[in-house]
Amino acid sequence: MGPRPAAGYFFEDYRVGARLAHATPRTVTSGDAAAYLALTGSRNPVHCAAPVAAALGHRDVPLDDLLVFHIAFGKTVHDVSYNAVANLGYADLRFLAPAYPGDTLAAESEVIGLKENSSGKSGVVWVRSRALNQRGEEVVSWVRWVMVARHGRDGAGKAAAVVPELPDTVAPDRFAVPAFLAPRALDPRATGGSRWWDDYVPGETIDHPGAVTVEESEHMLATRLYQNTARVHFDALAARSGPFGKRLVYGGHVISLARALSHDGLENAFAIAAIHGGTHANPTFAGDTLAARTVVVSRDPVPGRDDVGALRVRLLGAKNANLAGLATPAPGARDPAVVLDLDLSLLLPRRAQRLE
Amino acid sequence: MGPRPAAGYFFEDYRVGARLAHATPRTVTSGDAAAYLALTGSRNPVHCAAPVAAALGHRDVPLDDLLVFHIAFGKTVHDVSYNAVANLGYADLRFLAPAYPGDTLAAESEVIGLKENSSGKSGVVWVRSRALNQRGEEVVSWVRWVMVARHGRDGAGKAAAVVPELPDTVAPDRFAVPAFLAPRALDPRATGGSRWWDDYVPGETIDHPGAVTVEESEHMLATRLYQNTARVHFDALAARSGPFGKRLVYGGHVISLARALSHDGLENAFAIAAIHGGTHANPTFAGDTLAARTVVVSRDPVPGRDDVGALRVRLLGAKNANLAGLATPAPGARDPAVVLDLDLSLLLPRRAQRLE
Amino acid sequence: MGPRPAAGYFFEDYRVGARLAHATPRTVTSGDAAAYLALTGSRNPVHCAAPVAAALGHRDVPLDDLLVFHIAFGKTVHDVSYNAVANLGYADLRFLAPAYPGDTLAAESEVIGLKENSSGKSGVVWVRSRALNQRGEEVVSWVRWVMVARHGRDGAGKAAAVVPELPDTVAPDRFAVPAFLAPRALDPRATGGSRWWDDYVPGETIDHPGAVTVEESEHMLATRLYQNTARVHFDALAARSGPFGKRLVYGGHVISLARALSHDGLENAFAIAAIHGGTHANPTFAGDTLAARTVVVSRDPVPGRDDVGALRVRLLGAKNANLAGLATPAPGARDPAVVLDLDLSLLLPRRAQRLE
Repeated sequence: MGPRPAAGYFFEDYRVGARLAHATPRTVTSGDAAAYLALTGSRNPVHCAAPVAAALGHRDVPLDDLLVFHIAFGKTVHDVSYNAVANLGYADLRFLAPAYPGDTLAAESEVIGLKENSSGKSGVVWVRSRALNQRGEEVVSWVRWVMVARHGRDGAGKAAAVVPELPDTVAPDRFAVPAFLAPRALDPRATGGSRWWDDYVPGETIDHPGAVTVEESEHMLATRLYQNTARVHFDALAARSGPFGKRLVYGGHVISLARALSHDGLENAFAIAAIHGGTHANPTFAGDTLAARTVVVSRDPVPGRDDVGALRVRLLGAKNANLAGLATPAPGARDPAVVLDLDLSLLLPRRAQRLE
Repeated sequence: MGPRPAAGYFFEDYRVGARLAHATPRTVTSGDAAAYLALTGSRNPVHCAAPVAAALGHRDVPLDDLLVFHIAFGKTVHDVSYNAVANLGYADLRFLAPAYPGDTLAAESEVIGLKENSSGKSGVVWVRSRALNQRGEEVVSWVRWVMVARHGRDGAGKAAAVVPELPDTVAPDRFAVPAFLAPRALDPRATGGSRWWDDYVPGETIDHPGAVTVEESEHMLATRLYQNTARVHFDALAARSGPFGKRLVYGGHVISLARALSHDGLENAFAIAAIHGGTHANPTFAGDTLAARTVVVSRDPVPGRDDVGALRVRLLGAKNANLAGLATPAPGARDPAVVLDLDLSLLLPRRAQRLE
Repeated sequence: MGPRPAAGYFFEDYRVGARLAHATPRTVTSGDAAAYLALTGSRNPVHCAAPVAAALGHRDVPLDDLLVFHIAFGKTVHDVSYNAVANLGYADLRFLAPAYPGDTLAAESEVIGLKENSSGKSGVVWVRSRALNQRGEEVVSWVRWVMVARHGRDGAGKAAAVVPELPDTVAPDRFAVPAFLAPRALDPRATGGSRWWDDYVPGETIDHPGAVTVEESEHMLATRLYQNTARVHFDALAARSGPFGKRLVYGGHVISLARALSHDGLENAFAIAAIHGGTHANPTFAGDTLAARTVVVSRDPVPGRDDVGALRVRLLGAKNANLAGLATPAPGARDPAVVLDLDLSLLLPRRAQRLE
């Protein structure tokens, strides 16, 4: 692909197989971790307590998975979704290695699919993106597809569609659990809960207590911390003539708030293994109050490990709603009160099997 | 006490003598210190200037006393005041050892008193809480009492009241001044003021110059930084049907703002020794503008030290008021403009006595 | 000069030649850098990516020039502009040495000019200020003049005016480029742009793409991070009876936002060499949406270096305006939409000359 135009790439600029090295590598520090904590209210002790992290085998306090993802994702916006009409979906998001304060993340993407819309005004671009640390190790990898505007009309309708095959879910044998990890060393007094992997039941619904009202400055602080440049989150003036008339909260901030709220009830979910997919089912705006529900989908063993299990859950974020009165939408269905419907797998310690 | 219910403990769950190990140990970092500074405007150089801290004998830049307290306090909320109807009081709060970036704070509490209200709907719970660092050293210790709702009515009225005896004030011989501390090394050019302990006069009133308007996002950022989960600070939707119709600012944020404002006039108050007691006399909401007044109560020598003295003061926080026109309420009395009335002892360097 | 009065110095307190050692030295940390990034959205990889900084020869990730300046400037407010009626101008601002996390900045000023106004109610005070690190090295130096109120009338009209001669611009031979610096090691994939010094054309106008709406809590967080005590930014109650009826955004925050927005189009401007002068042409308030334009003034070689060049630019900040429809005001002229008109020189790598 040619050099990035000042106005960003348009649909016709993308080619299947093209690779994009995204700008602004980032050394993530304990300062970023502190800001993330203040912005989200995360209470996962693995990400804020050195002795807890050390007991699990970590050499330092690992950065929150979602902080890492948002920073990695933010780098791709400038090249992938700067002229996006819509963010259509995510798939195959896997956390592959822990990141620690002082690590530098750089992101790159490959265009893996293109499909022009029949209107000729836009098209869908699929990219596989990944963030690497300073040693070139993959830290997080994901596929994302966005609808991108065409800039011109010349050549419209000429390219053959290439639609990538994507896994519906990330299979547990593709979850990356560090060999050094000692999940059973997680101290329930540190996490605040005693339920381990074995104690959850598929179909179980957890309405997490807490709720949080979002403010303009908070979502902008978070989105800037991630160096995400998507203008819809920052420019109230332009937003006035946009579809909502106001700034849109970055969906990643909504995910982080829902994940932080979900701590109460999932206290020992020490890491995210994968995000299978998900929908920002409705927009979130400043002034909205968010609450979170978890529905346990399945309990999946992790091949090769008897000390850790994966809990596949739907994490629902609801806005301005009383959770008690909210019916969980069928998978794929939407409810006006649901802003987030995320399909992910969490890692929890698993009880030792007793010999019978 | 049994495992914490998802909805938190209620009055009937507490037993005198019960011990609670609170969740989420926290490694406090220079990132937290930066966030605290941005949120409060603190200008105490002991907490932000390495050479000043080193001159006093510190091995690193000590974390602000109140940052340490708010983080420690935040951990207790989940187990102590999650179902609190009201926060009734504090006593015997002592800062016992400095905390430095990289230290990990964990908090624990013991129930030391219980008294059911005559209505049978709630009762008062007294707890002594303390935060320990990773070496098991006590960093801060305090007593607090809250009115907690009863969940059920079975057993109401059955328990005998146990009301602990609490000191009205923390006696100066219980102030913890590190043996290594060299208070006279405090440089007036670094603090911005030249008054030492000897220069204050009991009865003296200082109206501190600045004032600061509180915003929703700021008090929530602060309260989340402390991992304090009290819902009244975060949930505007639920607050609409609460007693105030809006979110309440965490009282600790008010204390921090008042303490930061009080720097001008108390420039050499390098640490807080103890908080004897205090009242959040009125609620603070976003949009309120806070100003601070200090009334010097007494000048107390610190036993065993001739180089440091304790200044006992009332720190008043006023909202939306012109300090010049505000009469200091009599101790124990209230004024609608006063939101904070804190009784504390500050440490200041003391002049060397000249031989006559 | 005598000890600072609680209400700050007034015009008649200043004497030409007087030196002020400002309070609150500050150890700047990676936590401050994280907060700065979240507050401004800066994407200059030199200040956030360790490998990029190392490639340039830095021993650590240098702090953003403007973060350093705002912290240094903040210290002077208490002694110089606490009773300022107006901030009149800046000149001869030079960045002299990089600052790194862990460095401690202290600021001092010398009064270099005084001129009473004919009204006798106020006068102009010129100061040269500078920030030193813990080794006593100058990090940043600047001249500033402010109109300061008189406190009393006795002695009004008696002092002879002393008006310093100030350079219109900082000559390139006074730019401080560290000897170790290897500007050509700057990786365009890291910065996101491929234009080097040689590629810009005097007269060229760049309308930078993004825009950002300012919120009350953000500008106050930023201004507190800098420990700047100017009450006009914090006190909504007092502001109601002020000239604008509301809080004023700290001009330094506006500079930082404009500089961050200007990254797109000036990706390889790795540092600020000097600020020649500038005007906060109109006030900025919360709710205003800022956009940035750069006009290239000249391309100046840096004496003694063939690998780095200085780009002198006008950086314009506009509020609530469509840049496409905004005519650049003539130098010295004002436009109601322009809040910032800054005259500065940026450092960029320069291409190696090929032998012909």
